[in-house]
Amino acid sequence: MLEFCLVGCGFIGPLHAANIAAHPAARLAWVVDLDATAAGTLAAKYGAQSTASLEAALADPAVGAVMICTPPRTHAAIIERAARAGKAVFCEKPVDLDMGRVDACAAVLATTRTPFFVAFNRRFDPSHRALFDAIRAGEIGRPEMLVLSSRDPEISPPDYVAAMPYGIFYDTMIHDFDMVRWLLADEPVEVVARTACMLDANENPHRDPDTAMVMLRMASGALVHVNSSFRAVYGYDQRIEAFGEKGMLISRNRQPTMLERYAADGIRQDPLLRFFIERYAESYALELDDFIRAIDEGQAPAINLEDGRRALQIAEAAVASAKSGAPVSLPADSRNVGQRLP
Amino acid sequence: MLEFCLVGCGFIGPLHAANIAAHPAARLAWVVDLDATAAGTLAAKYGAQSTASLEAALADPAVGAVMICTPPRTHAAIIERAARAGKAVFCEKPVDLDMGRVDACAAVLATTRTPFFVAFNRRFDPSHRALFDAIRAGEIGRPEMLVLSSRDPEISPPDYVAAMPYGIFYDTMIHDFDMVRWLLADEPVEVVARTACMLDANENPHRDPDTAMVMLRMASGALVHVNSSFRAVYGYDQRIEAFGEKGMLISRNRQPTMLERYAADGIRQDPLLRFFIERYAESYALELDDFIRAIDEGQAPAINLEDGRRALQIAEAAVASAKSGAPVSLPADSRNVGQRLP
Amino acid sequence: MLEFCLVGCGFIGPLHAANIAAHPAARLAWVVDLDATAAGTLAAKYGAQSTASLEAALADPAVGAVMICTPPRTHAAIIERAARAGKAVFCEKPVDLDMGRVDACAAVLATTRTPFFVAFNRRFDPSHRALFDAIRAGEIGRPEMLVLSSRDPEISPPDYVAAMPYGIFYDTMIHDFDMVRWLLADEPVEVVARTACMLDANENPHRDPDTAMVMLRMASGALVHVNSSFRAVYGYDQRIEAFGEKGMLISRNRQPTMLERYAADGIRQDPLLRFFIERYAESYALELDDFIRAIDEGQAPAINLEDGRRALQIAEAAVASAKSGAPVSLPADSRNVGQRLP
Amino acid sequence: MLEFCLVGCGFIGPLHAANIAAHPAARLAWVVDLDATAAGTLAAKYGAQSTASLEAALADPAVGAVMICTPPRTHAAIIERAARAGKAVFCEKPVDLDMGRVDACAAVLATTRTPFFVAFNRRFDPSHRALFDAIRAGEIGRPEMLVLSSRDPEISPPDYVAAMPYGIFYDTMIHDFDMVRWLLADEPVEVVARTACMLDANENPHRDPDTAMVMLRMASGALVHVNSSFRAVYGYDQRIEAFGEKGMLISRNRQPTMLERYAADGIRQDPLLRFFIERYAESYALELDDFIRAIDEGQAPAINLEDGRRALQIAEAAVASAKSGAPVSLPADSRNVGQRLP
Repeated sequence: MLEFCLVGCGFIGPLHAANIAAHPAARLAWVVDLDATAAGTLAAKYGAQSTASLEAALADPAVGAVMICTPPRTHAAIIERAARAGKAVFCEKPVDLDMGRVDACAAVLATTRTPFFVAFNRRFDPSHRALFDAIRAGEIGRPEMLVLSSRDPEISPPDYVAAMPYGIFYDTMIHDFDMVRWLLADEPVEVVARTACMLDANENPHRDPDTAMVMLRMASGALVHVNSSFRAVYGYDQRIEAFGEKGMLISRNRQPTMLERYAADGIRQDPLLRFFIERYAESYALELDDFIRAIDEGQAPAINLEDGRRALQIAEAAVASAKSGAPVSLPADSRNVGQRLP
Repeated sequence: MLEFCLVGCGFIGPLHAANIAAHPAARLAWVVDLDATAAGTLAAKYGAQSTASLEAALADPAVGAVMICTPPRTHAAIIERAARAGKAVFCEKPVDLDMGRVDACAAVLATTRTPFFVAFNRRFDPSHRALFDAIRAGEIGRPEMLVLSSRDPEISPPDYVAAMPYGIFYDTMIHDFDMVRWLLADEPVEVVARTACMLDANENPHRDPDTAMVMLRMASGALVHVNSSFRAVYGYDQRIEAFGEKGMLISRNRQPTMLERYAADGIRQDPLLRFFIERYAESYALELDDFIRAIDEGQAPAINLEDGRRALQIAEAAVASAKSGAPVSLPADSRNVGQRLP
Repeated sequence: MLEFCLVGCGFIGPLHAANIAAHPAARLAWVVDLDATAAGTLAAKYGAQSTASLEAALADPAVGAVMICTPPRTHAAIIERAARAGKAVFCEKPVDLDMGRVDACAAVLATTRTPFFVAFNRRFDPSHRALFDAIRAGEIGRPEMLVLSSRDPEISPPDYVAAMPYGIFYDTMIHDFDMVRWLLADEPVEVVARTACMLDANENPHRDPDTAMVMLRMASGALVHVNSSFRAVYGYDQRIEAFGEKGMLISRNRQPTMLERYAADGIRQDPLLRFFIERYAESYALELDDFIRAIDEGQAPAINLEDGRRALQIAEAAVASAKSGAPVSLPADSRNVGQRLP
Repeated sequence: MLEFCLVGCGFIGPLHAANIAAHPAARLAWVVDLDATAAGTLAAKYGAQSTASLEAALADPAVGAVMICTPPRTHAAIIERAARAGKAVFCEKPVDLDMGRVDACAAVLATTRTPFFVAFNRRFDPSHRALFDAIRAGEIGRPEMLVLSSRDPEISPPDYVAAMPYGIFYDTMIHDFDMVRWLLADEPVEVVARTACMLDANENPHRDPDTAMVMLRMASGALVHVNSSFRAVYGYDQRIEAFGEKGMLISRNRQPTMLERYAADGIRQDPLLRFFIERYAESYALELDDFIRAIDEGQAPAINLEDGRRALQIAEAAVASAKSGAPVSLPADSRNVGQRLP
């Protein structure tokens, strides 16, 4: 039984709390949040203790793992404190937006030999995973092109946008950059990015990019396209298409129901699932299960800090290219590190 | 070069005329219709001669084949005259609605050794044909159930309905009855039919059945369902589903375009192709080609008078069952005759 | 908090136990099974008590509801005992296969004013429910035809088959008969059924029907077709098609993933979900939630004993028709009772 | 009746000849080819005259239009000769690969006031056209992103590749560049292109790019992605996806049949139509019809030389970007010229 200290009761925290509670080999022991009321409410629901003091929770020797669901800029510090307290760490992406800070974290994790997992949950989506498996099984031979559509139904609130400019790369496409590395078992050597502000000033007052396309060239020569938008009115649009010498694989979107409506003006189906909570519900449960099993079996978690670092590196290159207009090369020593395939 | 005498300029005649004209090994030589103007107009379009006299056209030794596109009750007489004139015959279904008349026709065709084809065009639809081929290739093993949906977007005009009561069986499902025999290479031993009048009195003043379901038991034990309606507002709905020990095959509908429209209220596609002219356009050309090749090679055409007779027999049984409420058995000697698979 | 006594640890019991445990307003208090070990194991998993004595559990005043997951022939007795103990009852279908026994049960439930729910779970499947909602909203106008495909990937074990001959009607299609009544808010007036044994003697040693088609005529005149098979090798095939004056609705099957594989020999997708546990996972959770809310709010549960009785009546008629070959009329007073639409 | 002189009996010539013959308002009068035998054979099939001398055919005053189906490098000269002979011109794309030569052509066409059509046939594909119509009707509001997949099942023969290096841009994507301009009614201001050689040396001995991705920025700010490959083993893959403020439109691929095959290992459909002849069969007939009607009504044909020139300009920019690695800007005066929307 792995006991969790969950830090951060905001958006994603309650979802992880429910998954911990439902997992047969896990227990929610602590909920930590500066907002003591929020922590107390969430903790009560699952019979956990609550506190505003991370130290208090980390001091509990029963706690085996810390799950970090706080805003990104707080991740690194919590990772380091949890690591020094000897706890395994499950951290929402990104590790940090500052590469130096990420590297410092890496050093602490290495010294403390902390099992660490960065939650790129999409790797655990059953359809994306089936696509990954099919590539690994050689179904399409050598992958030659990858096309990812990664579109949100709406832009984040203005203060969130203000706190993280170029969030379309740092917050959204960072998932895709991780998927590209993972699916192709390869690293990009060049990034070209273009953006646009398509939303009007009411919706996007900071004029931060809300629409973007990126082209990546991989070390293997494979070409990759990613596109993103913050206003897919028809739902959360998440597709991956892998093209290779022997065929193509497409991971399509799910819809809430399988109902088809035939009428005189056409055949209609549901719009897509509305947002990532619904769309990736299974992946959140599966990533937690994978983390728990890894800790249990003494293995390294499936997605490590280097994965988080490299996705950030690509996002940084995309921002630089979008700003300068020029293609940006990635460091020559970039090569896909041996990952444990989750 | 096979020269055709086309009889009947009504609904389906011009379609066949165009296909004859476009076929590299055929020529439209004569158009025969009591309405001399209609005959003249159609003939002029393709450089053919026209006449109101069938005899005149049959007297032309260049004519090798007669294509019969007149109303059903005139078919038998024209078949016999064409046969006696030594012409091959391509006849729109049905041969006749009176079984005795059909048998008399059969005798004349036998005596004159006339190549004869009854135009159950659906056998030539590429999707239905692919389903047939898959069954024959053993893809689903022994067929166990067959489900056919055969729905028209509207009912025929009142005078047409008045002239052929129970047209839902005699005119529409007769196609499906032929498909069942052909697809399963088997004969029905029992028919149960139910009907309803769902259209209102304006649309269906004669209160002839406009909605029907039929259940067939085949000699092999396979069970068959056919449903039909005269108001599929979303288009001409023609589906076949064959279920067997190793799987299932579904021949689905086509749509005019492959466009998908994603909006906030759902994903929309075109309604189905509107009517049989569009839906079965390919099958009309392919059945003609098959007929011409058969004549050319001295083979029997692919669908013979016995096929027409048996489809009529099933339609009669369906009418009897719908009227009496009781299941109707088909004659014990009904067994699938060896057909040349077209 | 509604405390449950779950009776029967066999196939479906553990699934319901997990759903009870996961429900925020429910608790599993007791597990009852003649097999004390099985009861103990299941109970332990959720912190419940276990016993082989139904009386012992019913004696617990904290228990508010009894969930019956035992074999069908034991249902009626347990219903009556639970009712007399003043507990609400959630019962797996069918209530009983003997109509007299069902009526006796009805009397007890009436006398004791027991809240009773018979678990026709398919009514809670999101896609089927969306179809129901669309009919109610008038999207297809008056329903005219209903076509249901209800196919299992395999036949039940021989002893199960021996204990319930004609299980294809009593056990499988009974769901569809309930769906027909619910979707159309109408009652059948006539049933015609045909069956076949398509499996070989190894798989189906009792030669009980493994393949069936049924045609129903409803009081409104609507026509209904249901087909069933016990060997859908491609997965659990559950489709509903409702055709009406303004269009058609189709509730299609789900697949495990949304992956499409394009290769030189075609485009391939996953087979269907394998069995009802996966396919109807959501409906099991939703029916429980609906039951709990009804009890909580003092309302009658959504599906009552009369619903169970009528589905059984249709199944009996289907068996009679399959045996005699004749259509079977249903009692003239059959009319759709006012249901609380769940 | 418009009489055509068809020049070039190679690959696409016979297809156009058949469409001319089938068109009610057109006649094939002459077939011109240096290979007199080929010209004679094709001409004979449609009752046309044949010659190796373009002058001879142009001298025929009955000829109203010249259809150019010869290799690209010969187009410009034939256009000029036909224009000077006072004939309308239907020319396969491209006009020429040399921009100076195209401009010279433009001058001749202007002087002679010749009706001219460059055959970007994809504009006439019913699904692509429906997408265009939906954009024009405002269904997706302002277009924000366009994603085109344009993949051939195989590379051209080595001598063809040798004659036109970078054919992936000049020969294949030139269609897509035209589609982008047409669909968005907008012009690109920047092009970034990347290529790869993925085929092995046997298939692609000249190591000419066989795989490519292009990113375009339009004057309106819309972003465009195009990808192409010369080895789509699953068929001719031609998709267009238009994303905008109110939704998304996808023009999907067609398949030869609508058959679905359900088996234990999955659900299988046909691969895509094999090549452009099948896929774009309708568009070839429709573009011819549009051309004939334009000539007939004295209107300018739907796609003019400026359209050809601009598509070539984009292809040139793509080649330059692929070679240098740098983004290439298009001339500042590039703006979408008013086209007659066909």
